[in-house]
Amino acid sequence: MIPFNKPYLTGKEAHYLYDAVYTGKLSGNGKYTQKCQNFLKEQYGFGKCLLTTSCTDALEMAAILIDIQPGDEVIMPSYTFVSTANAFVLRGAKVVFADSRKDHPGIDEDLLEALINSKTKAIVPVHYAGVACDMDKIMDIANKHNLFVIEDAAQAIDSFYTGKDGIKRALGSIGHLAAFSFHETKNIIAGEGGMLAINDPQFEKRAEIIWEKGTNRSAFFRGEVDKYGWVDMGSSFLPSELISSFLWAQIENIQDIQKVRVEHWNQYYDGLNEWVTKQEIQVPKIPDSATNNAHMFYIVCKDGEQRAEILNKLKSNDIYAVFHYLSLHTSPFYAEKHDGRHLPVTDHYSECLIRLPMYYELEDTQIEKIIQILTSS
Amino acid sequence: MIPFNKPYLTGKEAHYLYDAVYTGKLSGNGKYTQKCQNFLKEQYGFGKCLLTTSCTDALEMAAILIDIQPGDEVIMPSYTFVSTANAFVLRGAKVVFADSRKDHPGIDEDLLEALINSKTKAIVPVHYAGVACDMDKIMDIANKHNLFVIEDAAQAIDSFYTGKDGIKRALGSIGHLAAFSFHETKNIIAGEGGMLAINDPQFEKRAEIIWEKGTNRSAFFRGEVDKYGWVDMGSSFLPSELISSFLWAQIENIQDIQKVRVEHWNQYYDGLNEWVTKQEIQVPKIPDSATNNAHMFYIVCKDGEQRAEILNKLKSNDIYAVFHYLSLHTSPFYAEKHDGRHLPVTDHYSECLIRLPMYYELEDTQIEKIIQILTSS
Repeated sequence: MIPFNKPYLTGKEAHYLYDAVYTGKLSGNGKYTQKCQNFLKEQYGFGKCLLTTSCTDALEMAAILIDIQPGDEVIMPSYTFVSTANAFVLRGAKVVFADSRKDHPGIDEDLLEALINSKTKAIVPVHYAGVACDMDKIMDIANKHNLFVIEDAAQAIDSFYTGKDGIKRALGSIGHLAAFSFHETKNIIAGEGGMLAINDPQFEKRAEIIWEKGTNRSAFFRGEVDKYGWVDMGSSFLPSELISSFLWAQIENIQDIQKVRVEHWNQYYDGLNEWVTKQEIQVPKIPDSATNNAHMFYIVCKDGEQRAEILNKLKSNDIYAVFHYLSLHTSPFYAEKHDGRHLPVTDHYSECLIRLPMYYELEDTQIEKIIQILTSS
Repeated sequence: MIPFNKPYLTGKEAHYLYDAVYTGKLSGNGKYTQKCQNFLKEQYGFGKCLLTTSCTDALEMAAILIDIQPGDEVIMPSYTFVSTANAFVLRGAKVVFADSRKDHPGIDEDLLEALINSKTKAIVPVHYAGVACDMDKIMDIANKHNLFVIEDAAQAIDSFYTGKDGIKRALGSIGHLAAFSFHETKNIIAGEGGMLAINDPQFEKRAEIIWEKGTNRSAFFRGEVDKYGWVDMGSSFLPSELISSFLWAQIENIQDIQKVRVEHWNQYYDGLNEWVTKQEIQVPKIPDSATNNAHMFYIVCKDGEQRAEILNKLKSNDIYAVFHYLSLHTSPFYAEKHDGRHLPVTDHYSECLIRLPMYYELEDTQIEKIIQILTSS
């Protein structure tokens, strides 16, 4: 049996967990939280980093930070996880869904400007499969209309974008704010976990307050105020040291993890090349401006019928491939709130995309077997 | 040095963490989450139980479940943690603060009815120090005015209330909903963690959806629906198995933990008895209708000057006692939103209450030392 995902342990997780447990500091914002935050900030050039209990929570922090009010509009792809939208719905925003690109499930940047009006407050590009959206285009539009950009970088750790200035920047370091996930299905994991990168310095101070339940507790412990109290709205966004000590073992090994995943990805890509062309199946396209963090290897079938056949074929061989998002604009919760625009490209990905097994411990021979089964008639 | 708190490890935490880690199921709603939820439900007679990443998150779930809308009013004590209020502020509610009882920091039940109007939606009693509020009185008022009662049972695990019907019920099993904390300062801990008890069955189904990011994923895995999607607002309220496996070791040992803590509490109570009377200092009062879960041993000084003296005396002997909440109605965030009523009893606790060191591994000789220092002139 080949599962779709298998969480990978680098070997040091239990060691660091032990250390956290026996140090006796288990609540949030301890030693390992600081280590993870500092490393990721330095390694990827993010602004201030704050670990969170999930990427969902990081997105919720972002929505609070940009001060979303009832009636504000936020533009995002419909082909995304529910949390991208929920974070803003919880603040009373109207979500305006944009269609995806034909060559990639990411948001179609050319459709954005037509969706902007006086109520628009933010654009939330999702770097699907860790592949960069056209951030130059998005940032230009945002700057022109005075909007915030919140990168949903849930899948995009260790992935990069090179803009027209020729500078290669990490995804999550470009928008005003960015949210990452360390859910067990991601490249580096903590069971449940996430992080908010605060790239616009205007949000740094308030982010720390919102993270600490609306109190200025962090400033108090730095000696900046003489007592701490309730100064803003907020929540308990910070994770236990149980989460961050585990995550630290993953972060230490990120280069090895990435190297192996990219090898898997390339094996799929090369091995399926001929077959996909013949079958009119689409494979991921990595634009020149993007890098590949091998979060996911997906194929897009020509129709739902072909997808069902392929999924069944794999399943009957004990290989667990899965489809992905159901279009949010047609969901039971949002269909009536959506403005009625058809989003055909989104629906196409929703009906036709398959994610193939992808995890560190996947063996070459297993990928070979998957390729053989797919390409055999 | 005697710290204020020291997280206690029962010895099995690392074992269960190992098991969770090497089972390879680390995201939420796994084996240990189920074990914790089932045990607590059975042991304490709660309705459906859902673990959360914090008590804060459990309170936020409650606010969503009772469908708080902007302008709704929620009554709670001012002498409480910021999260009690934040959870409702995040949904747009107006918080109406009630004063505390003179004999106990809990909400003064006799003040509630005067604060109720047509906008009032809920009462949130906080069982301060794990000691029951007068739940008969509160439930009667709530029923009369058709309000929801959400017990903030953050400190109240394994504590009980006997009502006029003579039945002894666990705190957290009486209100429509109840929130617990497993923060490292609580009786049983998980670093950061919490739980929502859903006692009113009308909320059960929706609670599970909101917990799972607004999706009907749980129903899908039970085979009740054939695909899962976005059906409601929600968040990622469920904790990693790293949290719940750790918590399971604590839950298994709850009776031992409670026995030892009650012994500590009684030692303080008996040892300080004569001194507090002479000094006009108030000690906790456990009403006949309540039990004592020994979450906290506090004293209430006659004024702020006496408190400062006592805190300094303890500190100069390397004993770390602490004060507690700053009144929320006078906080920087809420002072202007508060309706201007003076809450003198709240302010008294805010100025005069001291929490003495209280944790499992505190030794009899250490408590004896604290008593000697306090009672020596």
